[in-house]
Amino acid sequence: MAVESDYRPPVEDHVFLLREAFGTDIVARATNGELTADDAAEILEAAGDFAASVLAPLDSVGDTVGARLDEGQVRMPEGFADAYRAFVESGWITAEAPVSAGGDGLPGAVRAGLGEFWNASNAAFALCWLLTAGQIHALDAAASDEIREKYLSRLVSGEWTGTMNLTEPDAGSDLGAIRTMATPRDDGSWGIRGQKIFITWGDHDIAENIVHLVLARTPDAPAGAKGLSLFVVPKYLVDDAGTPGERNAVTTVAIEHKLGIHASPTCVLAYEDATGYLVGEINGGLAGMFVMMNSARAGMGYQATGIADRAYQKAARYAAERTQGAVLDRPAGAPIAEHPDVRRLLSSMSSEIFAMRALGVYSGDLLDREDGPDHALAEFFVPILKGWTTEDAIRLTSDAIQVFGGMGYVEETGIAQHYRDIRITPIYEGTTAIQSNDLIGRKVLRNNGATVTDLFGRIEETIGALGDAGDDTATRIAERLERALAAARRATEAVLTFGDSPRDAYAAGVPYLMMLGTLAGGWMHALAVASVVSHDDEQESDAARLASAEVYSTHHLPRVHALAETVAAGEV
Amino acid sequence: MAVESDYRPPVEDHVFLLREAFGTDIVARATNGELTADDAAEILEAAGDFAASVLAPLDSVGDTVGARLDEGQVRMPEGFADAYRAFVESGWITAEAPVSAGGDGLPGAVRAGLGEFWNASNAAFALCWLLTAGQIHALDAAASDEIREKYLSRLVSGEWTGTMNLTEPDAGSDLGAIRTMATPRDDGSWGIRGQKIFITWGDHDIAENIVHLVLARTPDAPAGAKGLSLFVVPKYLVDDAGTPGERNAVTTVAIEHKLGIHASPTCVLAYEDATGYLVGEINGGLAGMFVMMNSARAGMGYQATGIADRAYQKAARYAAERTQGAVLDRPAGAPIAEHPDVRRLLSSMSSEIFAMRALGVYSGDLLDREDGPDHALAEFFVPILKGWTTEDAIRLTSDAIQVFGGMGYVEETGIAQHYRDIRITPIYEGTTAIQSNDLIGRKVLRNNGATVTDLFGRIEETIGALGDAGDDTATRIAERLERALAAARRATEAVLTFGDSPRDAYAAGVPYLMMLGTLAGGWMHALAVASVVSHDDEQESDAARLASAEVYSTHHLPRVHALAETVAAGEV
Repeated sequence: MAVESDYRPPVEDHVFLLREAFGTDIVARATNGELTADDAAEILEAAGDFAASVLAPLDSVGDTVGARLDEGQVRMPEGFADAYRAFVESGWITAEAPVSAGGDGLPGAVRAGLGEFWNASNAAFALCWLLTAGQIHALDAAASDEIREKYLSRLVSGEWTGTMNLTEPDAGSDLGAIRTMATPRDDGSWGIRGQKIFITWGDHDIAENIVHLVLARTPDAPAGAKGLSLFVVPKYLVDDAGTPGERNAVTTVAIEHKLGIHASPTCVLAYEDATGYLVGEINGGLAGMFVMMNSARAGMGYQATGIADRAYQKAARYAAERTQGAVLDRPAGAPIAEHPDVRRLLSSMSSEIFAMRALGVYSGDLLDREDGPDHALAEFFVPILKGWTTEDAIRLTSDAIQVFGGMGYVEETGIAQHYRDIRITPIYEGTTAIQSNDLIGRKVLRNNGATVTDLFGRIEETIGALGDAGDDTATRIAERLERALAAARRATEAVLTFGDSPRDAYAAGVPYLMMLGTLAGGWMHALAVASVVSHDDEQESDAARLASAEVYSTHHLPRVHALAETVAAGEV
Repeated sequence: MAVESDYRPPVEDHVFLLREAFGTDIVARATNGELTADDAAEILEAAGDFAASVLAPLDSVGDTVGARLDEGQVRMPEGFADAYRAFVESGWITAEAPVSAGGDGLPGAVRAGLGEFWNASNAAFALCWLLTAGQIHALDAAASDEIREKYLSRLVSGEWTGTMNLTEPDAGSDLGAIRTMATPRDDGSWGIRGQKIFITWGDHDIAENIVHLVLARTPDAPAGAKGLSLFVVPKYLVDDAGTPGERNAVTTVAIEHKLGIHASPTCVLAYEDATGYLVGEINGGLAGMFVMMNSARAGMGYQATGIADRAYQKAARYAAERTQGAVLDRPAGAPIAEHPDVRRLLSSMSSEIFAMRALGVYSGDLLDREDGPDHALAEFFVPILKGWTTEDAIRLTSDAIQVFGGMGYVEETGIAQHYRDIRITPIYEGTTAIQSNDLIGRKVLRNNGATVTDLFGRIEETIGALGDAGDDTATRIAERLERALAAARRATEAVLTFGDSPRDAYAAGVPYLMMLGTLAGGWMHALAVASVVSHDDEQESDAARLASAEVYSTHHLPRVHALAETVAAGEV
């Protein structure tokens, strides 16, 4: 790498997950053998190099300088435009796009790794990629040929970036309250009027155009969320040759002064009869936006995992280098990493980060399936990946500060940035409560627990495999996972009986989501252990993987019991 | 109140705790009837008014403007000097001081309330009070008559403020590594040389002098912590009449740029043969500092409780006023506070804040006892109050942001400040690991569990009283507390067997501390319930107290089971 970096992309973990942790080479399975985990390893290696050498050094510059609004135009800190150009030229936008949109069509399991690396190295920058990627998926699913050619192709090439315009001052979690209006014009375009807030990367100066995907209401549309349609609204109007020309009637009124992700410009956008183009069917906007949202929600899981891992890496490095006083039962000169409690903090962090990473890759793989139980499980995991990962990652970044002690509270150390940055993740792209409503309402109660029962069956299968392995660690982990599974089953029975008292069900929603996330994390470790104890070629990382699973099963998995009690209590 | 305030001091809660929750009027008991809970109510009312009207409005100014270093002199934001003068004139420094030092000698249980109010209204300002108060206690315990007259009296009057100088670049948690030197001079004073870092309120311009209490090493002192002595070092040298004159050789080299508490100047101080005066015995510095530290550690519990309550109050008000969309099973126009998950967040927060508040008052009361089991329990609770309260308060301020949704991430909303401010509390005055070492080493293993067994016996007594009350809520809460107590007993047995493998004991330390804190919180609620179901005069707040106990026992207490499993695992 050209630049020395404090970020070490966890390529080895990802390759282990792609190659064997889920029982087979899931890259080969997803691509019918066109690509293997070994090929993916090269891609991940290259992405990791890029993230570490180009994006990571800009992370703290972005935090310190931040995006600025200057006479209606957002200016990015120095270095961001060059980094974006290099990112595009290296093909990392195209890597995210499906083949149908002219992209590389990488499997979701591989894109989970890319998403983690971009976010770990520079979460604010990664949001630009994330929103563009989300819009690529949304337009690919619903846009007309003309829009595909004019806009989608420019997003896939990385020439332009994309945004997602949902929120308004009185329509946040409640999208049905959206008031932005779209009025048809004679030439087939639409006039968009309204104000959108919290628009991530809503304006910037690092690409030549910005494509806003806007939820708006058409005249005589039904009330509520069923009356919303989706429109493409470019920052600069595009002529027939596809060249951006004069400014569209959308202006950046303000940018927010936020707790973190300072280099992600969060804009208030005013649409004053801006020219837009319908995407998909009238009143079909929410369905179209959900494609983007699903992608963005999984992306949030990768973001939280990435930020937490970056914070962990910094803490682990500091603890390994810092010496101070004697360490219990260790020779003189032992670093603070050897203190029992620092060791506890670090191993607890890394074991949960692995669980999050593994669930991200597993879900990314499942999201490629078109239908059937695997697809249902993928949809089931989206709110869990988003909710559990982001909520717990707050504690992980906080623990990283703790490792630094007083130095962690000083901004120059750089660790506090992650604690500030991460705090947005359980809020945007749907708060944890919104995720839990989706989980409990659409994915548990609606099918009377069919998908969660399928999940429990899969976990039981892994427990069986571990029990048969004849390995002490595997046996202990199987026993702990079995008890947690039993608690989760009881809690699920309680939730299913809440069908008649929805307030109980929805009050139990977040604890239930957190319980399932924690359990799924234990399952991910169990799968890793099953793989380690059964593979023929002993690997250098085997011992560490078993140790990490032990830590997870004693420091995180027991929370399932506590959360199960909370769930069963319903609304108190 | 003259100024409209967003802070409502929880006077009623405190009076309930002082008057009846612990079975008797603990103010009357502590003062042999000189003062009653009714008298304390008036004091708390007045303090609350002051906190809400004078300190609270400065909280966000302090965050935004912050302390600045200007040519070697720290300048405080506008308003702080006036507020400090009013604080002193209202007698709130003197209220903290013992009678022996010329103070009001208020019981610790009442001072717990004052400490909470100062910190809730303005945590950065409160640190000035906290350090001064700590030094008052330390000097009262150990200083010579001359120092008492010259320095202590000026601290008690509030004319001067105090600081605590322990940390050096290579001596943080490990005080034995302190290198600051004190050399005796012919006139009986000492020349102090060295650098101290992280000195809270180490310099400012709101009082006419600053008294530094400095840990330093004398010539030929034994190595390590046993060779430390305590010195008073004034910012301005004091003549025989007690008037500050020329500047002492201690300078402010820098102030830290921190994540939060921006109006608390955190200084790097250089002592260049500064004039100091010995406090207590040579090599007895650590014992002297521990008096200050015990006071400061309990104070951290009040600080975390206060900041968490302030954040809770803001979130509760926002949720009660904000309407958006329909609320499940509630009439149109219901505010978001009625959403099942917002209600869960708010009730979960307030139930834990009450538990923290109650443990603060209870510990404050116990700290007044000179010796015996009550005193041992007081010492036992200090690390728990400090560790558990500060660690969990991070989550509480994070939950407050969650209630605000996207608005919570925007700095202007003011809620993010508390999330930034609170993050220092598990670090300073001894990290949570340091607290857990104290708890496990000095207070559990050293007496083979005698104090913790006493605590468990007291909890069992409360469970018995609840069981006898013949009230459904009381019975349910007793049952849950009994199960948690059983888990805590098993975990304690595991810890006691770790006596031979100290790394297991110390690795289990923080989870053990958190387990006991969570259990103690459940006990505090149980005591409140026992009081409510047995008092003759039904009170307006009775139903809310029972409901809060139900929430705690289903949303927090179950964590005892998870933590007990983690404790039993030892070092993994």
